[in-house]
Amino acid sequence: MANQLKPPPPDIVIGRLPLYLRALDLLAQEHKEVTSSYELGERLGISSAQIRKDLSHFGDFGKQGTGYQIDFLIGQLQHILKLNRHWPVVVIGAGHVGLALVNYKGFQDNGFDIVGIFDRDPEKIGQEINGVKVMPDSELVTTIQEYKVKLAMIATPAAAAQQSADIIIEAGVRAILSYAPITLVVPPEVHVQYIDPVSKLQHMTYYLEE
Amino acid sequence: MANQLKPPPPDIVIGRLPLYLRALDLLAQEHKEVTSSYELGERLGISSAQIRKDLSHFGDFGKQGTGYQIDFLIGQLQHILKLNRHWPVVVIGAGHVGLALVNYKGFQDNGFDIVGIFDRDPEKIGQEINGVKVMPDSELVTTIQEYKVKLAMIATPAAAAQQSADIIIEAGVRAILSYAPITLVVPPEVHVQYIDPVSKLQHMTYYLEE
Repeated sequence: MANQLKPPPPDIVIGRLPLYLRALDLLAQEHKEVTSSYELGERLGISSAQIRKDLSHFGDFGKQGTGYQIDFLIGQLQHILKLNRHWPVVVIGAGHVGLALVNYKGFQDNGFDIVGIFDRDPEKIGQEINGVKVMPDSELVTTIQEYKVKLAMIATPAAAAQQSADIIIEAGVRAILSYAPITLVVPPEVHVQYIDPVSKLQHMTYYLEE
Repeated sequence: MANQLKPPPPDIVIGRLPLYLRALDLLAQEHKEVTSSYELGERLGISSAQIRKDLSHFGDFGKQGTGYQIDFLIGQLQHILKLNRHWPVVVIGAGHVGLALVNYKGFQDNGFDIVGIFDRDPEKIGQEINGVKVMPDSELVTTIQEYKVKLAMIATPAAAAQQSADIIIEAGVRAILSYAPITLVVPPEVHVQYIDPVSKLQHMTYYLEE
């Protein structure tokens, strides 16, 4: 299956694999055992040809005409995305967004264990949310090192986000999901994704009739 | 400037315009008056050629060698994205995510006015968060019609999201930002964007060394 001459899959393809995984998980919950690129495509609003092409970057997961074994494909995608393990995650910022993140069941259900939430506001420190204690920023670096944390979610105000990023990258974080509405400057080995609901609304207003 | 023969700009270009707008807003806050595709590109991690190409879909906004007038370009982008007005928005679901949305200042700062948050849990109804009252689902349709709401954010559990979408689309909503981890089935005239932090984390674990 491995072919050393193949170019690495494009990042946009990697970004679709979690969507395939989510759709497959739902199919498995419906006690289905087999699916097709057509069925997946219908559910995701992606063409079946695109799905087959995306998956072909990683191997041959289905037989022509018989479709995909759902459990097998879930296992393969988890393996490719390195999800057959738990990942410790830290949350920076215990405001409304940070607290919503700590309260969101979906992280733990998918193997992302929030090991700490950090804030600089003394009034917030010591509070416990969903079993996770708010800790002072001064404990951020030791927590990242102790749990070998590679993933962080930044939920600070925009003005504090870059400084937080610098500190956690220095401590060993290599992937950041940022809710702060600024573009972070990071070294090339660090991956950043953004969640910005205002930009998503502004994208859609383009299409609205007034 | 208008050229009827031009094809419509690709959706991926539209999706980058809010990022340009955000970067320009920050430059304006720094009291800068002029910028360049190079400076914008540096701040956004997007090539200057890409930025010039994206903007060229909509007109000629800068002079070769003199760059862009920031205030002018902000005004143009706001006009293109239909942001030179306020948009009423409803939030469906008053759980942790819904409450974080109502508490987030960024919507109002950008002209998105949350006119109501809706839930089916009688214990939540009547609560007031950040000046917005939690209302029962039964008032959703009348609120959408009264305020001519075209935009909604869905923050319900996955199992309730499709039903909520059906109801609000029937009432007149034409753009949905969904926090529920399922793909919504909507008619072609309705735009949907998703916010799914788990998928974003899973995208990045691919690149992490274990």
